[in-house]
Amino acid sequence: MSLFGQITIVGVGLLGGSLAQISRQRGLADKVVGYGRNRAKLEKARTLDIIDSYEDDLQAAVAQADLVVLCSPVSVMTPLVREMVSFLRPGCLVTDVGSVKKPLVGEIQALMPDGAYFVGSHPIAGGEKSGFEASRADLFQNEKCIVTPTPKTNPSALKKVRELWEQVGMEVFIMDVEEHDLIFGAVSHLPHVIAYVLMNTIGGISTKNHEDVTSFAGNGLKDITRIASSDPGMWRDICLSNKKPVLNLIDNFQGTLQQVRNLIANEDSRLLEQAFETAKKYRLNLT
Amino acid sequence: MSLFGQITIVGVGLLGGSLAQISRQRGLADKVVGYGRNRAKLEKARTLDIIDSYEDDLQAAVAQADLVVLCSPVSVMTPLVREMVSFLRPGCLVTDVGSVKKPLVGEIQALMPDGAYFVGSHPIAGGEKSGFEASRADLFQNEKCIVTPTPKTNPSALKKVRELWEQVGMEVFIMDVEEHDLIFGAVSHLPHVIAYVLMNTIGGISTKNHEDVTSFAGNGLKDITRIASSDPGMWRDICLSNKKPVLNLIDNFQGTLQQVRNLIANEDSRLLEQAFETAKKYRLNLT
Repeated sequence: MSLFGQITIVGVGLLGGSLAQISRQRGLADKVVGYGRNRAKLEKARTLDIIDSYEDDLQAAVAQADLVVLCSPVSVMTPLVREMVSFLRPGCLVTDVGSVKKPLVGEIQALMPDGAYFVGSHPIAGGEKSGFEASRADLFQNEKCIVTPTPKTNPSALKKVRELWEQVGMEVFIMDVEEHDLIFGAVSHLPHVIAYVLMNTIGGISTKNHEDVTSFAGNGLKDITRIASSDPGMWRDICLSNKKPVLNLIDNFQGTLQQVRNLIANEDSRLLEQAFETAKKYRLNLT
Repeated sequence: MSLFGQITIVGVGLLGGSLAQISRQRGLADKVVGYGRNRAKLEKARTLDIIDSYEDDLQAAVAQADLVVLCSPVSVMTPLVREMVSFLRPGCLVTDVGSVKKPLVGEIQALMPDGAYFVGSHPIAGGEKSGFEASRADLFQNEKCIVTPTPKTNPSALKKVRELWEQVGMEVFIMDVEEHDLIFGAVSHLPHVIAYVLMNTIGGISTKNHEDVTSFAGNGLKDITRIASSDPGMWRDICLSNKKPVLNLIDNFQGTLQQVRNLIANEDSRLLEQAFETAKKYRLNLT
């Protein structure tokens, strides 16, 4: 017997499309329905056999669902839930894939009707590409997924959401929304801001003979700025949703950069090498 | 007939080892001699057939050389040249692989005796790994090399150095030292500083349940911080040698980051997305 009768994927993009594929491949649901606003895209996802069927009417999409997974941009998740709650059937489980958890989980939980359950999730998967064309069944394999219950979370709903992510191949961590948002502010949101800012700083530099100095970029610059090709709207939303931790982290970064700047200005060779040495140790620690 | 009788590689590391390999493979010299202070490493490089032979005495290493290539750390290049100049034979050509050109080229040029010629070079190749163990014959293939003549540079020496880099597979660009140092400050030195500082900022963050938050890093953080595993001593030297452009670039970066910080603080959704959009365009422009 499958884990869910019908799974409805709200937003068939990179994550939604990948979740649809692996859920069908592993028989987690009898039926995987895609919902979105763009009928032509949904039709294409169905033709590519990513989803079983689709609906562009939200009521029709969720009315028979046992599990609704919100895979749309973070900024439209709450409005979508507000629109769908009256159509959810008793026992329906709702989760999401949003990169920021505190505001989202609070808002959505407050909207849930009696008998329907929300548990926030953040599967750490994806990349700078977006759209279902980039989706693949093994996107989640061996990656981490954070599930963020609150004191109000229904324990069996939590158990089932945990099972979902484990069944698609992920290692599940449970933490509260504040801890999640601080950690991902540090390891994901700040780095994206830095990559965008670095690209903005050097992208416009020209010299007397070279209009675009980035034509001399080596692999180092390509690596460090790869995530600057990520979806601007998505990262705007993430930065604004996780505003306080992100601002604090930017301030910490600026302080650390200012220290290194001073070491260079003062030609403090010893402490400068020490700072770089510490950074290298942290980096080699990343697995 | 080969381009050079004897090539002496001063410093058999990643770049020196790779240059030795490709020079021998392509028959650019009758003999490739390695020089270094560590006899055991030189012996290993010879055993691995990276160099034909080696010397740990500088006079013996350079006395018969038609071309000396300085592949040692930037900070010891000038002292090494000072030590070797009285042993160079007439017509000997000296070049280097340093990432900063202005101070180096001025200092070395001033040391050259009559009849020996220095031309600065910066082959854009390498990576975060160092040491001859990582060297390979195709390191330079299809990469760019900057050659930085000055008004004093001997034209046939310049021609020969250009030929060297072309023969090992590189596309050669000629520019003056100031332009070089500004461009590589932007596309290489600043990004390295940023990667180190980012790693320092987040490497030490812990939360109530997680002592090392970087264990939750995805591929994005690994990409953006990859170059933070580069050799700390080498990058200390580069930052100090190219101090003025690097400090200016750090200031520009801080200004741009402050602007983005303000957009987040003020929740200026439209301009924030625009800033990220511009960065993405610059990034997609990197080939």
